[in-house]
Amino acid sequence: MVTLSEKILGAKAGTYVDRQVDRAFCHDGTGIQAKLVFDRIGSPKLADPASIYVIYDHISPANNSQTAELQAELRDFSHKNGVNFMDIGSGICHQVMAEGLVHPGEVVIGADSHSCTLGALGAFATGVGASDMAGIWISGETWLRIPDSIGIHLSDVLPAGVEWKDLALSYVSLLGMDGATYAALEFVGEAAQSVPMEGRLTLCNMAVEAGAKTGLFYADQETARYLALYHAPVDTQVPENPSYVRECFISLLDLEPVCAVPHRVDTVEPVTKLAGTPVDQIFIGTCTNGRFEDLKRAAEILKGHRVSVRTIVVPASEGDYLKAIRTGVAADLIQAGCVMGPPGCGPCLGAHMGVLGEGEVGLSTANRNFKNRMGVGASYYLCSPSTAAASALSGEIADPREVI
Amino acid sequence: MVTLSEKILGAKAGTYVDRQVDRAFCHDGTGIQAKLVFDRIGSPKLADPASIYVIYDHISPANNSQTAELQAELRDFSHKNGVNFMDIGSGICHQVMAEGLVHPGEVVIGADSHSCTLGALGAFATGVGASDMAGIWISGETWLRIPDSIGIHLSDVLPAGVEWKDLALSYVSLLGMDGATYAALEFVGEAAQSVPMEGRLTLCNMAVEAGAKTGLFYADQETARYLALYHAPVDTQVPENPSYVRECFISLLDLEPVCAVPHRVDTVEPVTKLAGTPVDQIFIGTCTNGRFEDLKRAAEILKGHRVSVRTIVVPASEGDYLKAIRTGVAADLIQAGCVMGPPGCGPCLGAHMGVLGEGEVGLSTANRNFKNRMGVGASYYLCSPSTAAASALSGEIADPREVI
Repeated sequence: MVTLSEKILGAKAGTYVDRQVDRAFCHDGTGIQAKLVFDRIGSPKLADPASIYVIYDHISPANNSQTAELQAELRDFSHKNGVNFMDIGSGICHQVMAEGLVHPGEVVIGADSHSCTLGALGAFATGVGASDMAGIWISGETWLRIPDSIGIHLSDVLPAGVEWKDLALSYVSLLGMDGATYAALEFVGEAAQSVPMEGRLTLCNMAVEAGAKTGLFYADQETARYLALYHAPVDTQVPENPSYVRECFISLLDLEPVCAVPHRVDTVEPVTKLAGTPVDQIFIGTCTNGRFEDLKRAAEILKGHRVSVRTIVVPASEGDYLKAIRTGVAADLIQAGCVMGPPGCGPCLGAHMGVLGEGEVGLSTANRNFKNRMGVGASYYLCSPSTAAASALSGEIADPREVI
Repeated sequence: MVTLSEKILGAKAGTYVDRQVDRAFCHDGTGIQAKLVFDRIGSPKLADPASIYVIYDHISPANNSQTAELQAELRDFSHKNGVNFMDIGSGICHQVMAEGLVHPGEVVIGADSHSCTLGALGAFATGVGASDMAGIWISGETWLRIPDSIGIHLSDVLPAGVEWKDLALSYVSLLGMDGATYAALEFVGEAAQSVPMEGRLTLCNMAVEAGAKTGLFYADQETARYLALYHAPVDTQVPENPSYVRECFISLLDLEPVCAVPHRVDTVEPVTKLAGTPVDQIFIGTCTNGRFEDLKRAAEILKGHRVSVRTIVVPASEGDYLKAIRTGVAADLIQAGCVMGPPGCGPCLGAHMGVLGEGEVGLSTANRNFKNRMGVGASYYLCSPSTAAASALSGEIADPREVI
């Protein structure tokens, strides 16, 4: 009768709690804003520097002197206050936190919309604004209304060429961009345990695109396998017949490759319908799909061929970059003509490293295709890494099932 | 009695010639300006599209929508006119041209100051402005005054820990930033033939920093060895007792690791004097020192350690990037905490990917440390890749001879 959110937060849905924050993280963009609020409050003592993480990912490396100055200020603050500091090149905050820092059952607050990504580890993870983050720095806690939960029941197996990103885009389309406002999405059902960790991270990452407070997987054998790579112990979690305000039943067999079309994440079309749409640039990366496994699948399609449209690949973290290099995945991608950038958000937020021009069309594995986000006057389609790679070969949106 | 410039251009120093251009190249920055002039002239037919190269390196990938639009315009022009087009990620124009495209004895004109780099291959290579490049596109030729030549006589061998970049900075310091105005530097003497191609490229690259029209090496066995990698045949060139207006004699044994200090390239101090100077950021890359061999030397120092200051590494070309990946050099650098960006100019021109903030201090393997170039209000020291790597370990300018 208890949802995972209720269990972790220790109270019933709809009630309010003050809760200690186990991990609080921010990036270069929100961190400097949090510091501004912190300074206005009078720069009091930090409650627990060891629980605070500052990770540079948004404009990494700095794109101009003003950015560099703000980053220097936050870097200096981080060093002086003894918080965990990861400089440019470490990777996207959500991915870095997922690499052994977040554990099941923890309360994890990030100053970024996609902090819900970390629900993949069985933690209660959500995003706040920079002012709330400053409050957490000072008090070590935050207030939360325990969310209602929506059950996303998964069954069967994914067909070849269909990816977890296709499921993510499909469930956002099913729910609508405000269809899960302030709810927690619980991914459950027989097939949930078969979702590998990189797929869980992709699925939880996009919960916020349906308005959800977070997305969660119960910690299980896959969580244990994954966290063992980082020598982190895991107590598994078992669904206790949780009460859902809504339930969705999805057979993975029913899924197909899809794209979110400009300019809404919840406006999703099958790739078969969009095939042949010319694109000017392809981007494989982000906290949604920049992990090693994503790059590997793209490389499997691109190896031995040459892209016919400019294709930017940005690994989600230093660890993902190193794995791609050591396994030959990076060499295959570069040999195929991909442009491989340093770990971080890359062009996702439209600040550097592959912004589109007026009238240009992009195809991206990111989580948002809002108007003007990745380039003023540009249009963006969202898709899986395999669809992105298949499309890179032809320069047009293409069905990965035809090239694998 | 004939200098290499006189021989290639077929006339005596001081005279003027109209000369067919064998290779004409530009980058995203100057290419769009050349197109502007070309359009104003009425977009006539290109004289010889096969001899024209457009290589995107300066802001690669695009840093904002305006850049993306200009790049889209030049990309479209390049495709329509059938010129050789290398998109983002190919590498720095000078390095790309050096990879089997330029041959000894050719006249090579680039729309960039450091086009003199290609004199390393025994070509007459120099830079022009974008308007002159438009003229070359249309006519296939340009006018040149045959430069006087300065002989740089090299003897002995480089001591351990001292690099060709140290020689480059030292000769610029010796000549002064206007000491070789419109002259051609000929690197000759017993030791010149022992300079490996990557060193020749570094040495010729910096000729313009002394005001020179170009720098040249005579094509020899090393040139033949190097160009054989690209299946390019080589007719070697032999100095014919050339007449020099000035001669400098440098024993390599007298050299030591040096830095150009802010804000002039010709103000050079020994690293021993600067050791301990704190730096905020280190940059290893550029057309001066972003080649595989440069990255390899840096990796040899950094392997198994961790940088204590943010360190950006940008390979000069796709080929250099691939070699670094396949040989383990890239993994060593990333494992050591370096941030590895896509091939291109990186932060060299201060447009993106590691700009410094007010008051910050950088150490770079680039060729220019002009005030505000790599960040408004920042200061830049220039050095060799080994000095950069040694300094990355401590976060202070350090002598590479103490760590190798």
